Amino acid sequence: MLISFEGIDGCGKSTQARLLADALRAEGRDVVLTREPGGSPGAEEIRRLLVEGAGERWSPETECLLFTAARRDHLERTIRPALAAGRTVVTDRFADSTRVYQGAARGDLRAMVDRLHDLMIGIEPDRTFVLQIEPATGLARGAARGGAEDRFESLGLSFQERLATGFRALAGDYPDRVRLIDGSGGQAEVAARIRAAL
Amino acid sequence: MLISFEGIDGCGKSTQARLLADALRAEGRDVVLTREPGGSPGAEEIRRLLVEGAGERWSPETECLLFTAARRDHLERTIRPALAAGRTVVTDRFADSTRVYQGAARGDLRAMVDRLHDLMIGIEPDRTFVLQIEPATGLARGAARGGAEDRFESLGLSFQERLATGFRALAGDYPDRVRLIDGSGGQAEVAARIRAAL
Repeated sequence: MLISFEGIDGCGKSTQARLLADALRAEGRDVVLTREPGGSPGAEEIRRLLVEGAGERWSPETECLLFTAARRDHLERTIRPALAAGRTVVTDRFADSTRVYQGAARGDLRAMVDRLHDLMIGIEPDRTFVLQIEPATGLARGAARGGAEDRFESLGLSFQERLATGFRALAGDYPDRVRLIDGSGGQAEVAARIRAAL
Repeated sequence: MLISFEGIDGCGKSTQARLLADALRAEGRDVVLTREPGGSPGAEEIRRLLVEGAGERWSPETECLLFTAARRDHLERTIRPALAAGRTVVTDRFADSTRVYQGAARGDLRAMVDRLHDLMIGIEPDRTFVLQIEPATGLARGAARGGAEDRFESLGLSFQERLATGFRALAGDYPDRVRLIDGSGGQAEVAARIRAAL
């Protein structure tokens, strides 16, 4: 089973992915917790090109190719071997992030994103949780975290608002797979909502 | 005008691209001499992921995505602006290298390579010179050059032989554009053959 967490920067995805992995392990499942961009040695190297530096460092099209390259490596070297071994994979972001970030928020490139996904990736998670919070709250959390990985946060609040709209729309595009989760409140409270929806 | 040089590792492309650029400049043309992977700051960063490290560092599919990402950046930031300004662009490798390296030599991926090219790149050079030399000679030249950029050379002689066959086949695929050039003999001799074919 492949489970993905999606949402805007600072929405709590990484924390909730970890909490779900811990909970599934406590029930005896063999869980691989991973993330994108990254999740394999090669993809982590590509990650540095994507999440650091100036916002306009790459065009949306080049960015989309780099995310897809990282995803292909992640899929080949981490996700597929784990699924083949009967493990559960929980990933902090997957293809929906590319659909929303490059396909909706940075130019009208969704058709290109979809063709690239069909050509080079092809699979979808079994279940996807989109954590919803106020864009301003997410941006403040990202800023509080600090570090060099602030390329997307540097694009500002209106960009985060377009992302939030794009993530919300995913539930309409993929009603069987995507669940919108209220990301407000304490970590345990949000985790309980996710368990109820799984 | 966009002119590309292609061929196996160590075939003399870089030298001949430079000699042609010098000759065109001496005739008063405004020439941009560039290369792939690379040719723009972002693409040069992607280059390091591609030409260094172990041969099996990337799958052919991931490699193809990384080359296409680098090419897209090169096209947007170097080639298209130069052509729009009326300059002549001479590039050491372009899309034919991906067709041959990933499409022919490393798995039967030519259909995928062509679809990716159509989706993300779309243009072809006005003229392409394929320099032909013996694969063993090319490999020896590459080894003599040294340095860390030996990832493709490390794949060995039979790989270089498959590449040579793939490059030769390009002339049949694109008869109007591609010219096969005998790469044996001195630099000036080869340069004269190229000028005669331009």
